[in-house]
Amino acid sequence: MLQYGATEGFGPMREAAAAFMRNKGASVTPEQLIITTGSQQALDLIGKTMISPGDKVIVEAPTFLATIQCFKLYGAELITAPIDADGVQADKLEALIDEHKPKFVYLIPTFGNPSGAMLSLERRKRILEVAARTKTLIVEDDPYGELYFGAPPPPSMLALSDGIPGSRDWLAHCGSMSKILSPGLRVGFLIAPPELLAKATMCKQFSDAHTSNLTQATAAKYLGLGRLDGALATVRATYAERARVMGECLKRELGDAIEFNAPHGGMFVWARLTAGRNANEFAQRAIEKLVAFVPGAPFFARDPDVSTLRLSFATADLAKIEEGIGRLGKAL
Amino acid sequence: MLQYGATEGFGPMREAAAAFMRNKGASVTPEQLIITTGSQQALDLIGKTMISPGDKVIVEAPTFLATIQCFKLYGAELITAPIDADGVQADKLEALIDEHKPKFVYLIPTFGNPSGAMLSLERRKRILEVAARTKTLIVEDDPYGELYFGAPPPPSMLALSDGIPGSRDWLAHCGSMSKILSPGLRVGFLIAPPELLAKATMCKQFSDAHTSNLTQATAAKYLGLGRLDGALATVRATYAERARVMGECLKRELGDAIEFNAPHGGMFVWARLTAGRNANEFAQRAIEKLVAFVPGAPFFARDPDVSTLRLSFATADLAKIEEGIGRLGKAL
Repeated sequence: MLQYGATEGFGPMREAAAAFMRNKGASVTPEQLIITTGSQQALDLIGKTMISPGDKVIVEAPTFLATIQCFKLYGAELITAPIDADGVQADKLEALIDEHKPKFVYLIPTFGNPSGAMLSLERRKRILEVAARTKTLIVEDDPYGELYFGAPPPPSMLALSDGIPGSRDWLAHCGSMSKILSPGLRVGFLIAPPELLAKATMCKQFSDAHTSNLTQATAAKYLGLGRLDGALATVRATYAERARVMGECLKRELGDAIEFNAPHGGMFVWARLTAGRNANEFAQRAIEKLVAFVPGAPFFARDPDVSTLRLSFATADLAKIEEGIGRLGKAL
Repeated sequence: MLQYGATEGFGPMREAAAAFMRNKGASVTPEQLIITTGSQQALDLIGKTMISPGDKVIVEAPTFLATIQCFKLYGAELITAPIDADGVQADKLEALIDEHKPKFVYLIPTFGNPSGAMLSLERRKRILEVAARTKTLIVEDDPYGELYFGAPPPPSMLALSDGIPGSRDWLAHCGSMSKILSPGLRVGFLIAPPELLAKATMCKQFSDAHTSNLTQATAAKYLGLGRLDGALATVRATYAERARVMGECLKRELGDAIEFNAPHGGMFVWARLTAGRNANEFAQRAIEKLVAFVPGAPFFARDPDVSTLRLSFATADLAKIEEGIGRLGKAL
């Protein structure tokens, strides 16, 4: 574990990641994935491998802000596709693909960051068909899929791709240990078609040579112990309770001043201030009350909605959530 | 250690890296460096931060091949500066800087990879003066500086920069735990002027968020134990003996067919086949005898010298070195 390792990843961790995906219904072999230094690096490698300055990339509006910055650093022109509670609007996405012929489409289908939206089963299939028809790569980022509060989400697009001819050739999938085991380890993975995977591996060689063997071995050992299911049950129950309490507090403390859908999974409440209130200004006042949230505008690659904000319930306990939302009420 | 950490690095590791550099005579505070996922990532971040397609970068001929590939991925046009046993030829480098006005100059001054060359004290100072005069960034990559066999090498260019007005503003320094503790941890660091360091930190945020806290804490703990000096004494003696034996074996087994200078440190013998022999062809024959070396041509960003080769004595014990060079003799 202390010596140099393979750029593709430590063998037992590649096997553990493949087994993790097979448990979720996707047919994956260790050779079809590489281990990355967190799934952030998987995004970076996709950007490094795929994007030349001026290339178009379609993302959801809103989407993960570190993805926006990552792709912009490689010179991408970002096109935004609108979402609703069922995730990205598939017909509008299809029209954007036909119009812009993007290098790829980046989606967080399950409990999107920041929206919390869940792409419906029907739309997942439809988008896979569009990918196969238009030969457009879909990048499915799935760090939150295990963090559901009620019924499990639909299968990942990777799992569904086996049933939709030709779609697997146009699908990459980013996975992460960060939200289910530990972000401090920096262990994620990238599943991709062979040619893309080979190029991403070459790019990784010149990015950081390989991901730490020590952290890969640690994660692989944990996954092999069989304790993940039990830990996830605890995490799901904990996050569900925190989300419920945060929602109740928001309604009590902010009332009509805020709108949001109760999340069914993930780590965030995505909300909108009413009556023309500006979330950047509200954030300043919140900080004066010693509580912080992320204003929503930076999550939009274009046309930011300054009334939006993202609240995280992942790391604060119930008492802190009560206290924090109470302070938001005072800030309001 | 298992939670998210700062992109700049884990506090105790930043302090340990600064102390490591101060021990080697350079004035460095923790705030003047960031921790990277191996020093390969420091090179990648410099490339990502500094290079736009078509920008010129000067490197030694030969130089580290992963650096060549790393900078080329960002679209750099590489200009090569010639070296001799005293490292890069300072007068020719100065003329190249004046002619090409490069974005930066990349050097491995101490036991260069693959050359093993040692940049003389006089040339180090001269190049720092040129950097200050022409406002040209010098990137000093120093993974091997501690691996000396006899007298210590001259101070690093970073250490010398304090004595040469204005030069510190044009100097970045890449350091690594890989050659003195463990490459499997993937812990290195980048020391750079404030503006460059801030931009590199932003690029790192979107590359891998941060380096694993677990591996940073492991390296910091080790450095704090005070055992490094003793370990390095062992490493130096071991590598010196391996280098000596490899040199003797090469003379005995390959005789006039090969030329090389005995290295004074580092991990490599850099050699040249005589009489028009081609190292790529020789590598094929060597593999048939089940022994491998790296042909030298890929270490040249331009005008490859196909007679050159790099032999590593770092990981093979004396018996394997005897056996390996014996097989090279048979392959010849």
